[in-house]
Amino acid sequence: MTIPPLYRPIGVFDSGVGGLTVLQALRRRLPHRDFYYLGDTARVPYGRKPPQMVVEFAIGIGDFLCGLGVEGLVVACNTASSVALPPLTQRAPVPVWGVIDPGVEAAIRVTRTGSVGVIGTKGTIGSGSYQHRLEARGLRVWSQACPMLVHVVEEGLAESPEAELLVRQYLAGRPEMDALILGCTHYPLLRKVLQKAVGEGVSLVDSAEVTAETVSANFDRPPRTFELGRVVHFVTGDPLAFAHTAAVIGGVDGEIVPLPVAELKAPSSEVLAEPRS
Amino acid sequence: MTIPPLYRPIGVFDSGVGGLTVLQALRRRLPHRDFYYLGDTARVPYGRKPPQMVVEFAIGIGDFLCGLGVEGLVVACNTASSVALPPLTQRAPVPVWGVIDPGVEAAIRVTRTGSVGVIGTKGTIGSGSYQHRLEARGLRVWSQACPMLVHVVEEGLAESPEAELLVRQYLAGRPEMDALILGCTHYPLLRKVLQKAVGEGVSLVDSAEVTAETVSANFDRPPRTFELGRVVHFVTGDPLAFAHTAAVIGGVDGEIVPLPVAELKAPSSEVLAEPRS
Repeated sequence: MTIPPLYRPIGVFDSGVGGLTVLQALRRRLPHRDFYYLGDTARVPYGRKPPQMVVEFAIGIGDFLCGLGVEGLVVACNTASSVALPPLTQRAPVPVWGVIDPGVEAAIRVTRTGSVGVIGTKGTIGSGSYQHRLEARGLRVWSQACPMLVHVVEEGLAESPEAELLVRQYLAGRPEMDALILGCTHYPLLRKVLQKAVGEGVSLVDSAEVTAETVSANFDRPPRTFELGRVVHFVTGDPLAFAHTAAVIGGVDGEIVPLPVAELKAPSSEVLAEPRS
Repeated sequence: MTIPPLYRPIGVFDSGVGGLTVLQALRRRLPHRDFYYLGDTARVPYGRKPPQMVVEFAIGIGDFLCGLGVEGLVVACNTASSVALPPLTQRAPVPVWGVIDPGVEAAIRVTRTGSVGVIGTKGTIGSGSYQHRLEARGLRVWSQACPMLVHVVEEGLAESPEAELLVRQYLAGRPEMDALILGCTHYPLLRKVLQKAVGEGVSLVDSAEVTAETVSANFDRPPRTFELGRVVHFVTGDPLAFAHTAAVIGGVDGEIVPLPVAELKAPSSEVLAEPRS
């Protein structure tokens, strides 16, 4: 008797719509797998919230998705990956991936001069998560928080004068480098403007793509006879507003389910302080 | 026998935290009155949503606040005031004020040359609501949508290089004028940067202040022996996130009550199309 395999869904979460770029990259590589996507739009943005607050959000979301029986958890948000990956990994009964390590590895692969840059939200850059990892591997790192770039993308202004102005301002102080990590899931949509600002000699490292590459290698691929995978999107804010903003990032393909924030209650801080052994 | 008067609360609503500037201005003038404030943070921003969608949001919110027995309704959001004031006024059993007409009157009072400017969200500027009213009164009007300025304020960057860059860009094409209407409740927080950009010869018209002036003239003031008025804030998104963003605008003084968006269901479009007589 041959028992046909059953595949559990893969959980992906982000503070809002940005992680849809990671989800799209994952689905291109694992088209027959099912996904749960959770966009915490009621509490977006994470980028300038205190780290401990973001940790609590991430733990609550991780518990929720693991409770649905996911086979693995992808933190498709640079801010949450920067501050919440260790506690999430300790807590979750399944493998957990963030977007930082894949981005770091990709930057190491592409740089020839050893000088790289990284841009992201205040939370991501402030945590030093990219910088510490890159420096530990012997690279010279320039970093810059770009708080307005998420909004430029979500306003549908990725190729506008506003985008060009802000990008030029944020990159004005950079030294010589040959790779720039896009440390925020929204930034790949600014690729054109960013490439123009840094010049063709600098490789842009898209963490969404490299994360999907790393993560997908860890999951079995159902045979082609399987139907194309489905996605359920949980949204803590208004579903219509989510779909409206998501249109800027290529839209939503699948069901959108409203999820009250109260369902994502993280355990008390005491429990958070004492990770499960 | 003297019957002591009882004062019903006044309802104020906005898509998010911006209307708190109007609420603050109202409370300075009516310190002993109670207010309900509703911030529709689950569906913010309104500025780039289709007008009919904003009308439905506004009707749902108006019905909710009127159901709580308010004595009057203040639409403290330029986008909603621009597109939803006629249907709201027809529907509500109490007086309704927006922020457009007070801003227009104030601009007419201060201009000497008859040339004025107005800046706002895409929704506000696209509706032409300021421009039509001002032109009907014989003024020359220059207008400009400034979609990024709300985000600059909410990121706490009102006095940053980003703010200066964007303001300079948005105002670059303006002709000679001697008054500029701040057609968005967030913009008064950019007053310093805006005044620097336009020069001291241009009066900035703050609709929050002039709306509060107009509205407060219509309400009885309880005697000083009354306790200071209270505010209940209803928030459709996450209460913590609301308080966090509101801190940028001077914070919240009063209770914050989570309100599911589902409680704000507007009637069907058919009902909307046929206003009550």
